[in-house]
Amino acid sequence: MKKLEQLYEGKAKKVFATDDPNLVIVSYKDDATALNGKKRGTIAGKGVINNQMSNHLMKMLEKNGIPTHFVEEISGTDTVVKKVEIVPLEVIVRNVAAGSLSKRLGLPEGTPMRKPVIEYCYKCDALDDPMVNEYHIAAMGWADDLTMQTIAKYALKINKLLLAYFKKLNVDLIDFKIEFGTTADGTVVLADEISPDTCRFWDSTTHEKLDKDRFRRDMGGVEEAYEEMAHRLQLD
Amino acid sequence: MKKLEQLYEGKAKKVFATDDPNLVIVSYKDDATALNGKKRGTIAGKGVINNQMSNHLMKMLEKNGIPTHFVEEISGTDTVVKKVEIVPLEVIVRNVAAGSLSKRLGLPEGTPMRKPVIEYCYKCDALDDPMVNEYHIAAMGWADDLTMQTIAKYALKINKLLLAYFKKLNVDLIDFKIEFGTTADGTVVLADEISPDTCRFWDSTTHEKLDKDRFRRDMGGVEEAYEEMAHRLQLD
Repeated sequence: MKKLEQLYEGKAKKVFATDDPNLVIVSYKDDATALNGKKRGTIAGKGVINNQMSNHLMKMLEKNGIPTHFVEEISGTDTVVKKVEIVPLEVIVRNVAAGSLSKRLGLPEGTPMRKPVIEYCYKCDALDDPMVNEYHIAAMGWADDLTMQTIAKYALKINKLLLAYFKKLNVDLIDFKIEFGTTADGTVVLADEISPDTCRFWDSTTHEKLDKDRFRRDMGGVEEAYEEMAHRLQLD
Repeated sequence: MKKLEQLYEGKAKKVFATDDPNLVIVSYKDDATALNGKKRGTIAGKGVINNQMSNHLMKMLEKNGIPTHFVEEISGTDTVVKKVEIVPLEVIVRNVAAGSLSKRLGLPEGTPMRKPVIEYCYKCDALDDPMVNEYHIAAMGWADDLTMQTIAKYALKINKLLLAYFKKLNVDLIDFKIEFGTTADGTVVLADEISPDTCRFWDSTTHEKLDKDRFRRDMGGVEEAYEEMAHRLQLD
């Protein structure tokens, strides 16, 4: 399958048309941004690692009953996926307080949540991706109630599956951001990616950060963290 | 019934013990604050108007099936209410975009919402009353799921009743903030107040603001707006 015209370029990925109107090719970049694009850089090797890790995890989730956009990996950085209309929400699932949740609720980073917390942020750079709730989503028509029920159900199931998967690799899944889309036939599927760009991974023993926070917070060892995660998933 | 020791002093009210452990006396002040206490002032006559308006509306809501903390008005500024444990949430109901919702979603003030929007903010001055959702509330143990279902149901019913009530007075209820508490026997009741301090009221014809936004935004005519609302409710 060949890349035809570029449909979209995001912060970390490009999307290309194919000769099948229901399929597109995602091409992962090494580019990294943070703070809603205000911080920019490159993480060598990130494109390949994120592509492979995301595909590996989506295949695992598919086997466990979560529909995803994944179709076929065609190179180190490129993957054929189902064309979807993205629900314009970042769906964040949190097991342990970190980042914006720590600030919002005044909880030290590392505070375990009694129950998993789902947050929705409206995908809009100009508004800084504001946190919203189901009432805003319904009133603004960003997704219907049935879609939101499906998304919440999938998000909690994905969290359970990923928590257990990473625990075996001695990694604590602190939180993660996912996105959903609807395919041509109306099915809600997991889209976007699951990678150190979109998850917080802490080593279970040392609590060392193995994710994009090393880039966001200028901690150094950024490439090494991505490679360590690839290694634990046996992708190298 | 006599005021015994002062139990609490808030921004706009004081609360006093009584000789009945299940009852307290709320005393409304003319003091006004905004911007989480950073702006302070006085609105002459506000204490009496808010006390009378809140009691009048709570009686109307009680008649229509909403349990409230209201017991008996004992003076212009003072009312006996049931002692409750406050659920530490500001429950905001919005019919039309204004204030923080306009900013959050980039909607011009006055944009009607397709459906009423409920928002929850955690009552915590040090954190600037952050917006939270049902997952945060459950994970932090601020209220159990059944209490939250009751609160959401009451909030939407209160909105319907108040919308219809104010429409007859040629006033559009743009949004409002309410609080709930649980009494000694565990009943969830509407507490706090319903007044121009806690609602946005716009004249239906002129769209003139008849609420605390006149104080927040230094628009002048603050006392006159409160008096106009009291007049429309035939409290004067």
